[in-house]
Parts: sequence; C-alpha cells; structure tokens
Amino acid sequence: MGVSGCGKSTIARELSKHLKVPFFDADSYHPQENIDKMSDGKPLNDEDRASWLEILSENLGQWEADQGAVLACSALKEKYRETLSKNVEKVHWVYLDGSYELIMNRINQRKGHYMSGRLLESQFQALEIPQYGIHVDIDQSPEEIVDQIMSNMEIKKSEFGVFGLGVMGSSISLNVADKGYELSVYNRAEGGEEHVVDEFLSANSEYKNIHGFTDLKAFISSLSRPRKMLIMIKAGPTVDLVLNQLFPLLEKGDIVIDGGNSHYMNTKKRFELAREFGIEFIGAGISGGEEGARKGPSIMPGGTRESYQHVSQILESIAARDDFGKTCCTYIGPGGSGHFIKMVHNGIEYVEMQLLAEIYALLSKQMNYEEIATLFKDWNDGPAYSYLLDITIRILEKKEGDGYLLDLILDKAGNKGTGSWSSKAAFDLGIPNTMMSSAVFARYISSFKETRVEMALEKGAGKNDSTLKIDLKSLEKAYNFGRLINHQQGFKLMESASKVYGWDLNFSEIARIWSNGCIIKSHLMNELHEEFKTKQDLFQMNTVLEVLNKDEKSVKDILSNALDQRLSMHCLTASYQYWIDMTSSRLSANLIQAQRDFFGAHTYQRIDAPESEYFHTNWL
Amino acid sequence: MGVSGCGKSTIARELSKHLKVPFFDADSYHPQENIDKMSDGKPLNDEDRASWLEILSENLGQWEADQGAVLACSALKEKYRETLSKNVEKVHWVYLDGSYELIMNRINQRKGHYMSGRLLESQFQALEIPQYGIHVDIDQSPEEIVDQIMSNMEIKKSEFGVFGLGVMGSSISLNVADKGYELSVYNRAEGGEEHVVDEFLSANSEYKNIHGFTDLKAFISSLSRPRKMLIMIKAGPTVDLVLNQLFPLLEKGDIVIDGGNSHYMNTKKRFELAREFGIEFIGAGISGGEEGARKGPSIMPGGTRESYQHVSQILESIAARDDFGKTCCTYIGPGGSGHFIKMVHNGIEYVEMQLLAEIYALLSKQMNYEEIATLFKDWNDGPAYSYLLDITIRILEKKEGDGYLLDLILDKAGNKGTGSWSSKAAFDLGIPNTMMSSAVFARYISSFKETRVEMALEKGAGKNDSTLKIDLKSLEKAYNFGRLINHQQGFKLMESASKVYGWDLNFSEIARIWSNGCIIKSHLMNELHEEFKTKQDLFQMNTVLEVLNKDEKSVKDILSNALDQRLSMHCLTASYQYWIDMTSSRLSANLIQAQRDFFGAHTYQRIDAPESEYFHTNWL
Repeated sequence: MGVSGCGKSTIARELSKHLKVPFFDADSYHPQENIDKMSDGKPLNDEDRASWLEILSENLGQWEADQGAVLACSALKEKYRETLSKNVEKVHWVYLDGSYELIMNRINQRKGHYMSGRLLESQFQALEIPQYGIHVDIDQSPEEIVDQIMSNMEIKKSEFGVFGLGVMGSSISLNVADKGYELSVYNRAEGGEEHVVDEFLSANSEYKNIHGFTDLKAFISSLSRPRKMLIMIKAGPTVDLVLNQLFPLLEKGDIVIDGGNSHYMNTKKRFELAREFGIEFIGAGISGGEEGARKGPSIMPGGTRESYQHVSQILESIAARDDFGKTCCTYIGPGGSGHFIKMVHNGIEYVEMQLLAEIYALLSKQMNYEEIATLFKDWNDGPAYSYLLDITIRILEKKEGDGYLLDLILDKAGNKGTGSWSSKAAFDLGIPNTMMSSAVFARYISSFKETRVEMALEKGAGKNDSTLKIDLKSLEKAYNFGRLINHQQGFKLMESASKVYGWDLNFSEIARIWSNGCIIKSHLMNELHEEFKTKQDLFQMNTVLEVLNKDEKSVKDILSNALDQRLSMHCLTASYQYWIDMTSSRLSANLIQAQRDFFGAHTYQRIDAPESEYFHTNWL
Repeated sequence: MGVSGCGKSTIARELSKHLKVPFFDADSYHPQENIDKMSDGKPLNDEDRASWLEILSENLGQWEADQGAVLACSALKEKYRETLSKNVEKVHWVYLDGSYELIMNRINQRKGHYMSGRLLESQFQALEIPQYGIHVDIDQSPEEIVDQIMSNMEIKKSEFGVFGLGVMGSSISLNVADKGYELSVYNRAEGGEEHVVDEFLSANSEYKNIHGFTDLKAFISSLSRPRKMLIMIKAGPTVDLVLNQLFPLLEKGDIVIDGGNSHYMNTKKRFELAREFGIEFIGAGISGGEEGARKGPSIMPGGTRESYQHVSQILESIAARDDFGKTCCTYIGPGGSGHFIKMVHNGIEYVEMQLLAEIYALLSKQMNYEEIATLFKDWNDGPAYSYLLDITIRILEKKEGDGYLLDLILDKAGNKGTGSWSSKAAFDLGIPNTMMSSAVFARYISSFKETRVEMALEKGAGKNDSTLKIDLKSLEKAYNFGRLINHQQGFKLMESASKVYGWDLNFSEIARIWSNGCIIKSHLMNELHEEFKTKQDLFQMNTVLEVLNKDEKSVKDILSNALDQRLSMHCLTASYQYWIDMTSSRLSANLIQAQRDFFGAHTYQRIDAPESEYFHTNWL
C-alpha cells in the first residue's frame, strides 16, 4: 500500500516471485467509471471506492484459500483497509513510505501512466499511515526494498544457497530440493543470462522449496545464519571476482563452498582470503557429471573440520551411496586437499579412458564394434567392472543409420585442464606419474589431426589384419594390469601431496567415496577401500602384487602385438615400464649422475659410501 | 694523510685492494727512538721526523717505479709533504678530515694503539690542511670513504661488472678479463662468503684488469655509464632479493643481465619491475658448465633489442665460436625468451642423456664397458657426434682401481628443475613433449632406490645374456632416430612458445649458437642450423623424414629387444610412439570424445561436418 507512484506494482511483482504466490494489481479491479474519473483528473470519493473495495475483499478471501497472493493497492485510509481485510485471516500490510517531493519527481519522469501528477496532493491528504505492518523507505533500490520486506515478514529462511545455475548448479539444486531443504538459488541476470533464474523456476515449478534470486543481497539475506552456500561457476578468475563481491556482503561464520574444478593452489589462496573476512571456505571437488550432480555425486570437501560440520548434513544427504549405504561424501582435509584429490580423480579418469581407447584401437584391427562390445560386456560383468567401461560398451553399440556413431566422431580429443594439472603437480612433487602424462599427451597428439593426415604412413594399418591374433585373455589381464598401476600412481601422487602439505589423507575413505557417484567408480575402488584400511600403497597389497607379477607377461605380449601393428599404447606401455623399473634394483641412472658430474660438477653418491656423502671426480 | 686516529691505515689498506697496489704504513718506518718518544707520551719534533721522512721519500720513489703504492702517513705539515713527494712523479694526496671530538672518541674506543689520546691535541695544532688533493669526511663507513676516494681519483671505470663469484660467475669473470675488458667483480662478504672476493683476487692476481668489491655501492660506482652488469647467482627468490636491492641504486639506462637459470615467467616479471626503474633487464641463458663459462659458453640473451646492443660486444666476445668462426651468442627475443630456450636446451639435454643411459643399459647385457666405449667412439666419429656422447665414452673408460668408476656410482639421478619446467611448459602450451617428461620421470623413478631394491624381481636380468643379440647397426639407427624426435619435440615446444608469446624466434640461429659452447652441441645441431634456414620443423626436412621413415623398423626391433630383456627404454619408446601417432591419420581419440560427451556433455566434432560445429548425443 501507499500513494500512487510509490512503486507498489513493481515491488509487489518482485515480492510475488520471492514468495512464489501470484501478483495482483488492485487498479485492474476498478469499475470503468472510476478509471474515467481519474483520467479526467478528478479524485475518487469514498463512494466511488466502495464497490471496488468489496470486489477486492472477496478476491482476497479466495486468494488466501488458494495459496496466498501479493496485492498492490493504495489502501490509503484505515476504513478501506478494514474492508480489504474482512474476508482474510492473515494479512501482511506493507506500507511504502516516500515523501511528496520524491514521488512527484518520480511521476514526472514516468510516461504513459493514467494519473496526472496533480492528484498526488489529494492522495497525501487522504493518506492515513497505518500504525501496524511493515514500513519501508522507498528511497532504495527495488532489490533492497524487497530484501527488507522479506526479512521483516519473518518468512522461513532458506537452509542452503546455490550460486550459479549452469548444468551442474541446476542439477545439484534439484538434488538439494529433493531432500526437502528450503533452498535459495542465485544466478546473475546479465551477460546473456537474463532469464536463467526465471527459466529454472518455471521448469521446476513443482518445487515449492526453491526460491530464485537475481539480486545478490536478497539472495544472501534469504539464507538462515550461519549462511551456507555452494558456488557452482566456471573455475578460474571468475571465482575470484565472485568471492571478492561476496565476502564483504557475508558475515563472520558464514560458509562458502566452491564446488567447481578450481586449482588446489587457488583454493589455498581463497581459503586465506576468506579467513580475513571470518568466512569459512570449503573447496569441494564434485564428480559425477550432470547425472551424478542430479542423482548423487561423489563429494570431496576440503577446509577446516569445523566448517565442514556445518554443511556435512546437507552435502552428505545429496551425495551418492556406497555399496553399504554410506554416503559418498566425507571430510577430506585442510586447505586445497578436496580440490587436489578431485584433480587426481580426473587424472585417473584420463588414464582409464586412454587405456580403453588403446585397447579399442588394438581390437579394431581384428574385431567389429559388436564383437568388441560383447567382449567388454564379459569383462564388465566380472571384477573389471567400471562406469567408464560400461559407457564404452554403450558407445560402441550406438548406431547412426546403418553405421556406428563412433566412426563419425572426429579423433581430436579435447581437455579441460585437470589432466595437465595432475601431471604438473607430479612434476612439482617429484612423483613419476607417467600414465597421466601419457594420457594427456595422447590427447594433445590427437589434436594435430591435420599434420597427422599429411604425414600419414599407415603401413599395414588396415582393419581386420588377418595376421594379428590377439589373445583376449592376455588383453584382459593387460587392461587390469594397466588399471592397477594407474591407481597406484594416482594414490602415490595423493600420498606425496598429503605428506608435503600435511593433509593426513585417508585413502581408504577416498576410495570409498569414489566407489559410487563419480566417473571412476569401479569394483576395484571397492577393493581399494578395503585394502587401504591396512595398507598405504597398492604395492603393499598382496592381492595386487600377485596379479602384477603374474600378468606382467601378458602385458609384454600385448605390447609386442601393438609394436607389430604400428600402434602406440601410451598408457599401457607406461604402466609396464613403471612396473619394470620399480622392480629393478639397478637402473642406468648411474650414467646420468656421472654425466652431470662431468659437465656440471653436480657430484654423485656411491654404492660403497653412505648416501649422505657426495663425490666429485675430475673426469679428464 | 691526517691526524693519528683518523683511520689512515684502514682506509689505505682497503684502497690498496681496489687499486691493486701494495699498502705501506709510514709508522713502520719510524726509527726506534721516535716510537719510544711517542710511547712516553711526548710529541715528536721536526728534527725527530727528518730522517723518517727521508726514508719514506726514497721508498716512495722506488714504489712508484714498481707499480705504485698506497702509503698511510700523517703528513701534517706542508714541508713534510714536500719531502715526501720530492722523489715521486705523481702523488694523489688524500686528506681524511675529522673533528677533534670525533677522533678523540674513536681513539678512546680503540685498544692497543701505541699513541695515547692526549697527544691528539698537538696533532691538530701541527696540522696544516692541504689546499689540494682529495678531502674526505671520515664520518662515513670505510666502504663509503673508499668509494668516494676511488671516484675522485678519476681511476679508469670498469666496462663490465659480474655480480656473484660462484663457479659460473668466477669462470665468466676470467673469460671477460681475458678479452681485455676492465672488469669489476662483486660478491657479498657474509653468510660464509667472507673471503670469496679476496680469494678470487689472490688466485687470479695476474689479472690487473679485475677489480674486486664487497661493497655494493662501490661496485656500482666503479662501472662506467651506462653500467653493464651480469648477475651470476642461484636462480630463485634470491634473484628478487638482489634485484630489489640493486635497482634503486642504479640509474636509468643501466643494464642488468641475469645469467642464471631463472624461470622464464620470473624473468618476464623482473623485466617489468626493471622497467619501473628505467633499468634495461636481460634474461640470458648461459650453457656450457664451468668449462664453457671459462672458455666460451653458448649465450641466449632475451630482452629488448636496444638493451642487447649495449652488451652485445662483450657477450659475443666471451661466447664460443661456431664452425664458421661466428660467435655462439645472438639476440633471442623479448621478455623471458632467452631463459625459455635455455630451459628447453636443458630439456633436450635430459633426453640426450636418458637415451644414452637406455642404450648403455641394453648394451651392458652383452658387452663390457670397454666394448661399449669402442662402439660409442665409432658412432662419435661419424654424424652422431655430440658432446654428451663424447663424455659418455670418457665416463665408460674411467677406472677406479681394477674396476670401473661407473659401477660404483649410485643409480639415483638428481635434477635441478629445468627438465620439469620444460615438461610443465609443454602442458601449459598443449604440446606433446613426451620425451622430456619421460626423461624427467625416469630420474624420479630412479630416486626410489629403496623401494626398487625391496621389490626387485630382476627376472633373467643378469649380465651377458647369451640369448640376446642386439643388432648394433639397428641400435645406432635407433639412437639417431630418438635424437631426431627429441630435437623435433624441443624445437616444436619453442615454436609454440614463440607463437603464443610473440617472440618471433629464429630457429636456425638458435641451432647455430647451440652448435658449440653448450652441453647439447653436436653435428646434428650444425645440420639443423642449415635446415632451419628454410624449414620451420624437422618433419619438413626431407633428410630427417627419410631417416625416420627408413629407421622406424630398427627402433621397433630395439624396443622388442628391450621388452624381451625386461628393460624400460622410456625415451626411445616415447620417440617411437610419437612418430607412429604423428604418421597415423586416424587415432582412437574418437572414443575419448564420445566418453567425454557421454558423461560430461562436453560435445564432439564429426568427420562429416565442419570442425566449427560441435555435437552432443543423448547416449542412453
């Protein structure tokens, strides 16, 4: 309520979006004679208003019976308000308070309104300011006004907020809403994202517990304290922009979770920025793609244990369940640890994919896609089960017309960076992470398609090579071998980071939350969950060691096949070479040490002296 | 000259170091009766001094005839000074000027001096301040005083400065001095480096054109303008500390060269810091180890072309010479380009070393060191010549007692980071730099010696395996093949950086300055110098392509040998796989694209649609 020109319609319309109830404009219920009178510049008298108010009053009763409504109505006098409220049980009166000068000014700037400015004076004369309800100063932005009304209405605050309604943000939001939480969602309404929130709310109008915002302050004040929000935006500098905007608006103790694929070093920095504001920051890796986010992802939150306690209930409720019904979300460790292990997760994923691509390439030499799919199904029904093997079968079977879709897909692999981050982290930590690097490089090489086509030799590289007889049992063993070394290298990378950064990671728990919800879920991951309870390392696990020992020969045979077929198996080769070297007491690095000492006086250690002693030889 | 206690001896001693002439103390030439008189607290009269001054005068004549000298002598009265200078052609009088109070204070703080403080007054009474010579206020540090004297003496300024007298800095300094330049060298005199400058000067006292400094300001003011100095200190944060100390002391237009192995990104930042001070900064890669630095390194300066002009003469004079007598120093490009290509140089070096280590490991199965050395000599006499092959021969031949030194060296390879930097740069640029990564990882793996010994299997890994028959011609071809791919990958990495950073690198010139003076010098580098004049890429060079094509089979055979011997040849394998993939028009990356689209909706391109179009399939 308030005088003409105070902004009733605008504010009421916004408010209706936040409250998820319809908006009505009292002016639409005027009889025609009233409208004519006002257009002629004549003020309405109380007689004019009587029938109008009766109509509104009846409607209000009806609206309340439905789901409630927001009505914009001047309702200047107490007796009008009495009429309006007589059929309603609960009215929230909101008085929009502005001075004559302010409103006069606004009306003069407005066009096409059917009331001329000179009637304003009579409105102010008629106005009886209510002694009750919510009074809001209109000399603020509409967002601020709505914000203030919302907080004063003592509406139930949201328990959780999601910032960013991209593919992952939307899916996670619905996942949270499914669990019954009151949820606020925010997306900016600019840069081509003008309608994101509206469209999301329309498409999911059945969720009465989702409240949409395009105004950041309103979004924030819609959250109960301490506020808990999940940022789901593209990793990179945008995250810093958003946090710099957010943190000053939040309060000490509020909890902000970055759920994107941020680099762990950036997460560490942001963690410290947040601390300056007293904000609890959590860097959470989230895996599972769109489907996982919607139905239950694997979640890897890193930060302080205290801040995790505040969000554990919600995060654990939306995560996937492991084979024993436990949630695939657990506290990982301090600082950037959550994003670090998500990065390694993706690195392991790169290798799993590359191993399958290498095997597919080899098998294609003697089998068609149907046969390969059948073989893979056989594997997938056994201990080799993995989500990635599973989708590979579906991909092999996917037809387009008479042919296979796979044959029409260009062989240039893309990447989003986490593979190369894992590889670079390995170099920083001094860990021989050969398979991830090989997988990333294999993608890079594939991207030079034009050069490859120009230089193509393809000697004897035709399909259905009759001379090739791959032993399928050996191939299955080689695949298993490669996967074991892949997981060994991935977990060793995390072990090294855990030591260097003092994270105290629990590898059994990490394997457990990766046993479902995420892209690298597999039977192997379940086994590792068990084994890591007592072992720190795959090479300490007898079952793993036995297999590696026994199947080394199969890998060698498959690699020989590949050599003969002029096929590079980057990852399988790397797994074999790593195993060979790690089981060789003597390597040829002594020559490298001698060379380094020769040309650079870098010194060397000796086998017949303590390792603490360094020697230099005058070689000439 | 000056009254007792003004600091004559201290200053004169310092000055003599800077001027590289002997120091004498006039007091040492007093007859005993004078000393006794002074000890008794009695002032000397002019009669006492006459014989003393005559002795000094004769000595001064002698000293001048030799090489000059610095004499500390009170020389209070004009007539004493006349006597002193009568046998000398050129005297620089330096008057140390201090108040009675200041000097009294200092004397009271001194112990063991044979003149008591109360004689000071008589000294001041006798003092006739000279109306000529250099007058210096003694209320400054000794370094400042010497600095002021040096600048006032109009001594010839140095043309070049070297900051840091480590192994490389010392060697380069002597190299510069050999070329006849007046050279100032600086090293801090703290943190265990108290005697570095003194020792360097003593050890190289035959160089009259080297001037040593431990005071930074004195070092700086010893240089002619615009000052040109080469920083030779350990790469890392120390460089920033030094530059932050240096830049404010320098003047606009002065040129600072960082000759260490700094990371190119740091060089870029420092370049911008220098610009704020108006300093011309040059990041120069320097290769060649101690010997190269002394006799002629390969120098890779990056910065502005203008600043390079100021130092080109000196840098080019100290560099190695190529086969045509041209200097192995050339302007590389802007910003961090010099340090970038030095980093890649080192990456190539890692691979060259690793290839030799792999071949050494394989050959060791059937040959002794003498035989291997003989084989390598044969290779080295032909087109396979390289410095690294050369030193490998000498290493193989080096004996200790009855055995070979190589067998006593521990097989844990160290590294100083440039290899992993190269690898990480490749990931940043999206370049499949597989061999460098493999070489670095091979070193990392070697460092896990304890695990390797614990896990050792060494199946059939004994020496002199009679079943093995390596074809030595194939091995030579494989070695050559690996080296070609190594250089291809290295130059492609530089090409990519050149494009991304806009450096406009000249690869023919880079190959030329790497053809001598540096660790990876080889006949191949000379060939590349020629070929790069018209080609951008080794794969565009017919001679290279022919060899790769022809010798692919040999590499395959050697890799089969290695598989049979349970030996990992990381780098040779990587070279083969890169070649195979780069000559394959169709790889299995289509499966990876399908997988990515399946679980992450990352989209894919198709072979039957323009590459600008991206597709998404609903796979289920």
